[in-house]
Amino acid sequence: MRAICLEQNTVHFQRDHPAPTVGEGEVLIDVIQAGICETDLQLVRGYMEFSGILGHEFVGRATSGDFQGQRVVGEINCNCKKCIRCHSGFGNHCANRTVVGIFKHDGAFAEQVAIPQSSLHFIPDSITDDQAVLIEPLAAALEIGTQMDLSVIRKAIVLGDGRLAYLCALAISEKVKDLSVVGKHDLKLERFRKLGMEAIKLDDLECEKAFDLVVDCTGSVTGLPLALELVEPRGTIVMKTTVVDQHQLSLAPIVIDEVKLLGSRCGPFDQAIAMLEAGRVNLTGLITNRFPLEAAQEAFQAAVDPAAFKVVFELNGASVT
Amino acid sequence: MRAICLEQNTVHFQRDHPAPTVGEGEVLIDVIQAGICETDLQLVRGYMEFSGILGHEFVGRATSGDFQGQRVVGEINCNCKKCIRCHSGFGNHCANRTVVGIFKHDGAFAEQVAIPQSSLHFIPDSITDDQAVLIEPLAAALEIGTQMDLSVIRKAIVLGDGRLAYLCALAISEKVKDLSVVGKHDLKLERFRKLGMEAIKLDDLECEKAFDLVVDCTGSVTGLPLALELVEPRGTIVMKTTVVDQHQLSLAPIVIDEVKLLGSRCGPFDQAIAMLEAGRVNLTGLITNRFPLEAAQEAFQAAVDPAAFKVVFELNGASVT
Repeated sequence: MRAICLEQNTVHFQRDHPAPTVGEGEVLIDVIQAGICETDLQLVRGYMEFSGILGHEFVGRATSGDFQGQRVVGEINCNCKKCIRCHSGFGNHCANRTVVGIFKHDGAFAEQVAIPQSSLHFIPDSITDDQAVLIEPLAAALEIGTQMDLSVIRKAIVLGDGRLAYLCALAISEKVKDLSVVGKHDLKLERFRKLGMEAIKLDDLECEKAFDLVVDCTGSVTGLPLALELVEPRGTIVMKTTVVDQHQLSLAPIVIDEVKLLGSRCGPFDQAIAMLEAGRVNLTGLITNRFPLEAAQEAFQAAVDPAAFKVVFELNGASVT
Repeated sequence: MRAICLEQNTVHFQRDHPAPTVGEGEVLIDVIQAGICETDLQLVRGYMEFSGILGHEFVGRATSGDFQGQRVVGEINCNCKKCIRCHSGFGNHCANRTVVGIFKHDGAFAEQVAIPQSSLHFIPDSITDDQAVLIEPLAAALEIGTQMDLSVIRKAIVLGDGRLAYLCALAISEKVKDLSVVGKHDLKLERFRKLGMEAIKLDDLECEKAFDLVVDCTGSVTGLPLALELVEPRGTIVMKTTVVDQHQLSLAPIVIDEVKLLGSRCGPFDQAIAMLEAGRVNLTGLITNRFPLEAAQEAFQAAVDPAAFKVVFELNGASVT
């Protein structure tokens, strides 16, 4: 099958990659659409030392199992279902897990991907492919609300103007009225302004410790030092993005200001799907670039272009919507 | 008066330092005993760029005010009582504060120190000088319990075998039964073992992500990377010590494991005093070295000796107890 592989920090298209081996409890999915995420860009830079087929944001059609013939999305953590963490409801933190397109599990930048049946979520007709492909990152954005009570937040700011920043801002804005965003790119900031949010150019930001919630979606080691300049004493910094680089900074402000730093990763797919079904979030128009798998290089280049929002691969007769 | 000053990263004794200027609302305290803290050692290394009289852990006798003639201890944050943080009950985080012996306020390694009346706490006769001088760090240890619910913690570990580590272990052990300590010094670890705690030599530590609470009292940038190896997914790392050095490490585990990193600083003096009065904590025998102010150099050397626990300056006729 056609697939996009990462090997030795290089992305390349393969026309004749072997089809996925389907493990016990897994379902083969015909991929319809798969999106490039900031994590993919970090993986290319060496994060997780992954090699294999990339891609963990996707919508596809199940070829067997409970949802045979129907559209599905899949959670990315494939857990063992046996360990204490799985039994405690924290399967996303299973020590034996593989992670689709990230760790020991081939991903969805391919004609087919093998996903555990238990990780699949049915996608109703009211949700388009273009929306469905964003469910994984929308769920990640909603994770924040499962880790802390957003309703008590007085004033929040999202650092970064990229894809995850946008989804986090959307997710947080349901609960937090005073929400602003800071970024480097006018083009990207304009998207936030269209939602009625205050979007500040980084150069114009006044650094005062005035926010009880700062969400770092920069995908850069520069995010945390900035967050520490903005968070008020006893406030919370949520770290949403993983970076391959080491941080080098003074963490004394965390102690002095008694800051809470909260790592946040994958989130509740059911909440994301419910939000889309109910029309509580509008994700139309966010896919800016569409490529076939063959155009892997162009697609990965487009994904770092500030003019792009979401770059997706389309295959298996995706319905543009 | 006699005093110990920090100037240009050098500690020196002064025989004829001017007496403190007593500001509005402040009370002049005759210092009885004052302890050397890890923060003092960091200040000497350049932390906070402080210059002036050192010392923030003390017991003394009020020369005026509500407690005239009586023994008192003093909180270290001198806040403005006017700003939003002071009015919200977070005076310790007042942006206009000075901090005794740490920031813009002369400290207690002197015959006298000026402290706001509102920062003073009366010390009943049942509490000895040797115990009272440890109230400030004991309160800091108790701060953890004001920031999180310790009763839900299953398995905790304290990193470090020094003074603050000991007090944190004491404070946490009231709520957490499965508590261990890891450190470098056999002599110091023995103190924990005498309390019946498991005290592990660093070289013997098995690094597995098995603790839902890790308290970093190392006073070193090596503490956090170790904490990240020990904390279980969704667990909490409390950072108790400030260090002047920059951290250089990968913070990706915080995101991947959704760890909560909680900075923790000064704590509730009233709780510490109540704990001592009720005999819920035994701090006797912890003062290992006693010096006059004149022996500043010897005292600061003793404070970094693993054989020492608490090093204090004694003056104004301290009653050894």
